[in-house]
Amino acid sequence: MRLRKRPWVKDEIMEYTDYMVQKPEEVRGKWKQLFKNEYPIHIELGTGRGQFITALAVQNPSINFVALEQKQEVLVQAVRKANEMKLPNIKFILGNANNLMLFFAENELNRIYLNFSDPWPKNRHAKRRLTHQRYLDIYKQILDDEGEIMFKTDNALLFEFSLNELIKQDFHLNHISLDLYRDEENIRKHTQTEYEDKFMKQGKPIFRLEAKR
Amino acid sequence: MRLRKRPWVKDEIMEYTDYMVQKPEEVRGKWKQLFKNEYPIHIELGTGRGQFITALAVQNPSINFVALEQKQEVLVQAVRKANEMKLPNIKFILGNANNLMLFFAENELNRIYLNFSDPWPKNRHAKRRLTHQRYLDIYKQILDDEGEIMFKTDNALLFEFSLNELIKQDFHLNHISLDLYRDEENIRKHTQTEYEDKFMKQGKPIFRLEAKR
Repeated sequence: MRLRKRPWVKDEIMEYTDYMVQKPEEVRGKWKQLFKNEYPIHIELGTGRGQFITALAVQNPSINFVALEQKQEVLVQAVRKANEMKLPNIKFILGNANNLMLFFAENELNRIYLNFSDPWPKNRHAKRRLTHQRYLDIYKQILDDEGEIMFKTDNALLFEFSLNELIKQDFHLNHISLDLYRDEENIRKHTQTEYEDKFMKQGKPIFRLEAKR
Repeated sequence: MRLRKRPWVKDEIMEYTDYMVQKPEEVRGKWKQLFKNEYPIHIELGTGRGQFITALAVQNPSINFVALEQKQEVLVQAVRKANEMKLPNIKFILGNANNLMLFFAENELNRIYLNFSDPWPKNRHAKRRLTHQRYLDIYKQILDDEGEIMFKTDNALLFEFSLNELIKQDFHLNHISLDLYRDEENIRKHTQTEYEDKFMKQGKPIFRLEAKR
């Protein structure tokens, strides 16, 4: 999705001081202090307009959520949402997965959500896929012993790639689905992203898996 | 596929004494003696008209193949093929996977091919799927330490089920593909079954995986 650059967005976004973590490097290893509780921390990489993560934050008051998004024009909409809903258990980072090790200490996280990540379909771009082993190595470090990755995509090529990468890196896979909403029960059981709503209306299958460290 | 019962088929099939193993229980643990060599043994469960397994037998003279099929009206066509081609490295069993333990001793096999097995789409029939854990338990016993399962299907539900079952049973998966012929190179690299030819013409994706014991 193309967005016009809107320079004032940066100003607006940084005004939400309760929600935007402006220097996440300084919070590294201290996220529970920032949230002022001992609840588990779940992050989403590429949070978009925040429909998924804000819904989870409402449903799970005993979990802390950190949402990363690299496009400020998109992120601002997620932050506005959290602000309107006065959610106490969510923080936002304007940044991307390449800097995860700067933002989180070893074993600091309990769960990572990857939803509809960019598939980078060309082979020469495989390294940019968020399930490439160079990212899996990072996730292993910042996730705790019981930590897990929850991965959803509409892209068969990315799902296939991810299955093979995760298995090679000895993640233990679980609940692999090649068509999550074949079972209509799952519409209620799972929380949908904005993309997902669109794909479901088009009747496209959604692929999903869980991977334990 | 429905076939008229043709009682004379039984007579014809049993006349191919070089190919039909009439009492496989008596060969249990002695397959290498029957083949009169020490080559690895690969079997196919549900061999149909035999296009796949006879092609493999031609391409791999240093491997022994055993093809199982429960429908004699179909099997007869596979046996005729092997007979016409005078293949020395293939034998046939009129029988099915439920009796595998009667036909093969522990560690006797090096590879099991499952090609386009019946998906048994209803949940209450899951136990009949050839990748149900009750079959995987059997495969583990008759395969040797390095033994592997090569699995192909056009059915997403069966593939999803199989992935989860194999992982639960601690098989080590490899080369998972959600669309084997997305890469056209694979048409040459892999041998196709009769069903597969049909599905490829229809543009249906073929799912494939390898699973090590």
